[in-house]
Amino acid sequence: MTAKVLDAFTQEHKQLLESELRILVEKLNAPPILKEAMQYSLEAGGKRIRPLLVFATLAAFEKDPKIGLMAAAAIEMIHTYSLIHDDLPSMDDDDLRRGKPTNHKVFGEAIAILAGDALLTYSFEVIGQIPEKIASGETKLQLVIEMAKAAGSEGMVGGQVADMEGEGKTLTMEELEYIHIHKTGKLLKFSVIAGALLGGANQAQLENLSAFAHYLGLAFQIQDDILDLEGNQALLGKPVGSDSTNEKSTYPQLLSMEGAKKALKQQLDLSKQYLEETGLNIHLLKEIADLIASRDH
Amino acid sequence: MTAKVLDAFTQEHKQLLESELRILVEKLNAPPILKEAMQYSLEAGGKRIRPLLVFATLAAFEKDPKIGLMAAAAIEMIHTYSLIHDDLPSMDDDDLRRGKPTNHKVFGEAIAILAGDALLTYSFEVIGQIPEKIASGETKLQLVIEMAKAAGSEGMVGGQVADMEGEGKTLTMEELEYIHIHKTGKLLKFSVIAGALLGGANQAQLENLSAFAHYLGLAFQIQDDILDLEGNQALLGKPVGSDSTNEKSTYPQLLSMEGAKKALKQQLDLSKQYLEETGLNIHLLKEIADLIASRDH
Repeated sequence: MTAKVLDAFTQEHKQLLESELRILVEKLNAPPILKEAMQYSLEAGGKRIRPLLVFATLAAFEKDPKIGLMAAAAIEMIHTYSLIHDDLPSMDDDDLRRGKPTNHKVFGEAIAILAGDALLTYSFEVIGQIPEKIASGETKLQLVIEMAKAAGSEGMVGGQVADMEGEGKTLTMEELEYIHIHKTGKLLKFSVIAGALLGGANQAQLENLSAFAHYLGLAFQIQDDILDLEGNQALLGKPVGSDSTNEKSTYPQLLSMEGAKKALKQQLDLSKQYLEETGLNIHLLKEIADLIASRDH
Repeated sequence: MTAKVLDAFTQEHKQLLESELRILVEKLNAPPILKEAMQYSLEAGGKRIRPLLVFATLAAFEKDPKIGLMAAAAIEMIHTYSLIHDDLPSMDDDDLRRGKPTNHKVFGEAIAILAGDALLTYSFEVIGQIPEKIASGETKLQLVIEMAKAAGSEGMVGGQVADMEGEGKTLTMEELEYIHIHKTGKLLKFSVIAGALLGGANQAQLENLSAFAHYLGLAFQIQDDILDLEGNQALLGKPVGSDSTNEKSTYPQLLSMEGAKKALKQQLDLSKQYLEETGLNIHLLKEIADLIASRDH
C-alpha cells in the first residue's frame, strides 16, 4: 500500500520535473547544438533521487511539493553537469551512461565540457528566479550559497578530486568516507536542505534533516558499491565490477561484503532515527530511504 | 597627469583584488591540489580589466571602489575558469597563457576541468556572501541572475560554442559580432552593471552604462584581432597570428586592417557618447576605454 503511494508520488513528480527541465532549457536563447547537448543529458533519465528528496521533504512539511520544482530542477542540472564532466576521457572515460552513449561520445568533448558549464551556470540563475511568493530573497540567497558549497570545491568537486587522487591506492575508511560525503553526499544533503528551507524549517528540524540526509548519503554510496559487485549490468547501464577495473577503493573491499551490508543497515537506521526526531510527516522520506538502500540500479 | 591617476588607481586596486582572490581560495576547506590549481590560474596575472571596470564604475558614482571587491573577485573567477576550459586540448589546445604553461599542462586535464568548475561555482557563493551593508538581498540576487546570464549559454558559453562552430568558415559580420558580443562582451558588460548596481544606479544610468559597456566590448575585441596580427609576441604571451592558424574569422579579415581600425574608433566613440549621457564622474571609465582601444597586449 505505502509502496504504491510512493510510486504514484514518484511518477507524478518525475514527470513534472522532466517537463520543467525541458521548458527551462527550451526557452534559452542559445546556440541550438548547445541546447541539444544540455537536453540530451538532462533527458537521459536516471532515478531523479535528488529532486524526489526536495519534493518529499516539502511533503514532510505538508507543503505543496510543486513549490520545490525550480530548486529540484537546479539540483538536477548540477547533478547532470557533474556526470557529463566525470564521463570525459580525461576523467572516468566512460562511453555509456544509463545505457546511452555519454555526452562527449555524441557531441564531442568540447561541447560536452561547455554543456556542463552551461548547466552549472544556469542552475544558479534558476534558483535566483524562484518566484517571490515561493521563497523570500533571503531564502533564495541561502539556497545559492548552500548549493555552491555543496557543489564546489568544499563539496562535490572536492570529492571528485579526492576520488581521482585515491585511484590505485588502498584508502583508509576515513579517506573513503571523505570522498563519498563530498562527491555524492553533499548534493544529496542539499536536496533535503533545499526542501527544508522552502518548507519553512526551524533550526532543530534543519539539523535533524541534515543528519538524516548525511547518513542516507552514506547508505546510498555503500549500496552503490555493493551493486557494482552484485548488480545486473542491464539494470545498472554500466559494466559490473567497473570500480575495481578503475582501481577504486570500495566499502566491500575495506569491510568485506558482509561488513558492507551491515554498515549499510547501520547508516540507514541512523538516518531514520534523525528523521523521527523532526516531528514531521515523514512517511515518504522514510520510504525513499528504504528504496535507496534496497534499489537494484 | 590623468594617465598617472589611472595608473595609481589600477595599481592599488589590482593589488587589493589579487589579495582578495588569494584569501578567498586560501580559506576553502578543499583538497590542496585543487586549491593550488585554482590559485595558479588566478595568479597568472592578466590585465584584470573586468575588476577594474567594477571599481571604476563605482568611482563614477563617487562610491568607495572597494565595496566592489567581492563582485570583482567573482567576475575574475569566472573569466579565469573560462580561460582554463578554453585552453584544454579538446578546445583551443593552448600550451601557453600569458607566457606561462596553461593549467592543464601543469595539473593535467582532469584537475584543470575541475578547477574551472570549482571557480565557476565559487563565484556565485562569493556574490551571495557580499555583506548586507554593501548590498541588499535584492541587489545580490540581481547580481546572481545577471552574472549567470552573462556567463552561461545565453552569454559567454554560448559565444564560445558559436566561436567553435564558426572555425574554418568565413563568417558574416553579423555572425562575428554575435560571437564577440557573447564570448567576451557579456561578461565585460556585466562588470560595469555590477558596479552600477552596487553604486545605486537609476534605470537611465543603468541603460547608458550598459550601452557604454556593449560598445566598449566590441572595441576590445577589434583591438584583440588587430593585436593578433600586429602585436608583439613577448607582450601578448602567445604567438602572433594564432587566430589565422586556428582558422578564426577576424575583423581585419572581414574589413581589411584599415577598416578594422576605423571600426575600432567608431565603437570607442559610441561607447564614450553613452558614457557622457550618464551625468556621472566618468573620467576613470573614459581612460580605461582609451586604454583598452590602444593597449599593446
